[in-house]
Amino acid sequence: MSKPYIVIIAGGKGERFWPKSRSSKPKHLLPVVGTSPLLTQTLKRVRGLAPAGHIFVITSAVQAAEVRQCCRNLVPAANVVAEPVGRDTAAAVGLAALLVAQRDPEGVFAVLPADHVIHDTKAYRVDLKAAFAAAAADRVMVTIGISPTEPATGFGYIQRAGLWRECGGRPVYRVKRFVEKPQPSVAKGYLKSGDYVWNAGMFVWSVPVVAAAFAQHAPELAKGLAKISSAIGRGRPLKETLAKIYPTLPRISVDYALLEKSPNVVVIPSSFDWDDVGAWPAVVKHFPADTSGNVCRGHVVVEQGRGNLVMSEGKHLVTLLGVDDLIVVHTPDATLVCPKSKAQDIKALLKRVEVLERGARWL
Amino acid sequence: MSKPYIVIIAGGKGERFWPKSRSSKPKHLLPVVGTSPLLTQTLKRVRGLAPAGHIFVITSAVQAAEVRQCCRNLVPAANVVAEPVGRDTAAAVGLAALLVAQRDPEGVFAVLPADHVIHDTKAYRVDLKAAFAAAAADRVMVTIGISPTEPATGFGYIQRAGLWRECGGRPVYRVKRFVEKPQPSVAKGYLKSGDYVWNAGMFVWSVPVVAAAFAQHAPELAKGLAKISSAIGRGRPLKETLAKIYPTLPRISVDYALLEKSPNVVVIPSSFDWDDVGAWPAVVKHFPADTSGNVCRGHVVVEQGRGNLVMSEGKHLVTLLGVDDLIVVHTPDATLVCPKSKAQDIKALLKRVEVLERGARWL
Repeated sequence: MSKPYIVIIAGGKGERFWPKSRSSKPKHLLPVVGTSPLLTQTLKRVRGLAPAGHIFVITSAVQAAEVRQCCRNLVPAANVVAEPVGRDTAAAVGLAALLVAQRDPEGVFAVLPADHVIHDTKAYRVDLKAAFAAAAADRVMVTIGISPTEPATGFGYIQRAGLWRECGGRPVYRVKRFVEKPQPSVAKGYLKSGDYVWNAGMFVWSVPVVAAAFAQHAPELAKGLAKISSAIGRGRPLKETLAKIYPTLPRISVDYALLEKSPNVVVIPSSFDWDDVGAWPAVVKHFPADTSGNVCRGHVVVEQGRGNLVMSEGKHLVTLLGVDDLIVVHTPDATLVCPKSKAQDIKALLKRVEVLERGARWL
Repeated sequence: MSKPYIVIIAGGKGERFWPKSRSSKPKHLLPVVGTSPLLTQTLKRVRGLAPAGHIFVITSAVQAAEVRQCCRNLVPAANVVAEPVGRDTAAAVGLAALLVAQRDPEGVFAVLPADHVIHDTKAYRVDLKAAFAAAAADRVMVTIGISPTEPATGFGYIQRAGLWRECGGRPVYRVKRFVEKPQPSVAKGYLKSGDYVWNAGMFVWSVPVVAAAFAQHAPELAKGLAKISSAIGRGRPLKETLAKIYPTLPRISVDYALLEKSPNVVVIPSSFDWDDVGAWPAVVKHFPADTSGNVCRGHVVVEQGRGNLVMSEGKHLVTLLGVDDLIVVHTPDATLVCPKSKAQDIKALLKRVEVLERGARWL
């Protein structure tokens, strides 16, 4: 097959790691784990799987400048494409397919999230190569599913059916169904059965397969995408075309719009470690803790406290006295104090900030 | 009697209101309650009870500049005297007596703390005038005891005996004994009996009475003070003399050194409101709370939290999510997070800060 393409989806609203993350600097632009932004880590991880010119990054207008900064020497600047407005993942995948189709109407491409933490780059590349091989071999939509390590209730699951074939040394299974985030008892059953993997939003497929799926399962989206395709085919600038048509596309996830409805989905269970580092509490396991289980970054003193995550920027000293299992994150203009158990409610907090006079300056 | 003198003791290490208070800016230099520093509030409260030239402020070297700033237009700069080192309250009272004796060897003077919150200035002045009258009338050591409003365990108590006489319209009682901070059950008994008042460190007496008490009950201190007196009598500069002799004085409280041992102590139960605002939790009742009992100053958002005290300086936003009864104080260079119930352990925290490399810059 010809060289594959890789489209990194670098979206996200920057809420879950507030106040470090902001709308203009979401998780993938932060070194949440490691020393470089997660987007940079992702781009380095895929290096060699496709030529640099075959790699695209789809992001939002507000993040575009900083995303281009992260992409320097890794992706041509012209391959960083900004959505004028967010329209969920189906539209982004459609845009990805258009970008690839311009170069190669038969092209095989991967859609990958920008903000996951994966250390075993070797295994990751083996799995992706297997996925590229599967997508090139037949008209299938290939997903890489994460082999679950716990009965997580925060992810959707994919139930596999029988073996479809082996590709690149990896088993590829037919998919029986996609299931929503389960209740704890249900999740335990999934884990025990061994038939379920986590849906991590990693897909590999060819332009014709994606186009056919849009046409069949998401005709309204397909129509909007066709307009964009036709406009750029007539030489209209991409940015201007997106500004005009993209906002008219329906908001829908690619899982719901295409994958759950398609019969030709297959799955490769991952052989690499994976962490989506979904919110502050997930950061803890990536940093060393003190003898009381406190993870501290920057100038921090914890007295009579256990299991806290404390981050301070610059020369500011953050001190905790007599508190346990708290998240305290200090940045130059905003501070968050919240129990680990409440981190999922940060959106409610940010809604309150949003209604403040000039609250937007902190978002 | 000739016009009395007033000596304000403006010491303190600035620990209990950290990070707002620092060693160079303790509680009396902060507007902990109200809009001006507590020292300024104290000086305004005594205005008119004595001529400005009869008012002295004793402070520490590290605080002297800022104390003089607070005293502008209220106390002559030369009347602000800095201890070269802290030597507890007996030495400070001895120094006060020396300062007064220089002007009037028979002078009556009050020793008053700089960092209490008192709103009823009128009643306060009535009580102080009564105390001046009592101290001028006979060789007694007059204390103003705070009429207790709860069985507090954080203060020493003074048990009164029978009525000594009336002065300035206020009853003055003989003192039976001074008692240390009591256990809760004991404190309840004190409150119920009606015979006990809180020892708030407010004393009024004449130079000869204090001098006699030092000579009899604290001879070593008396000797040191005599050396200072003799040196300044010979025209030596006060600052130089204090630098030389003050560090040799024994460290002891005036309660322990003089009052507990003297038979001629009398007490006037206060007729004014009083709050020593001993630590962060005590601040709460002086500010309005929101409907969830949160007291917030500056840019603050509390979501799903009750009974918190949150203070932010400048343009920094402090947010709390899902926490109750927490104290969060943010200053430009340091932040404190601590449950109200742990505020008394702040010294342990500051000891930890002290051992940090460059930790002193935050103290």
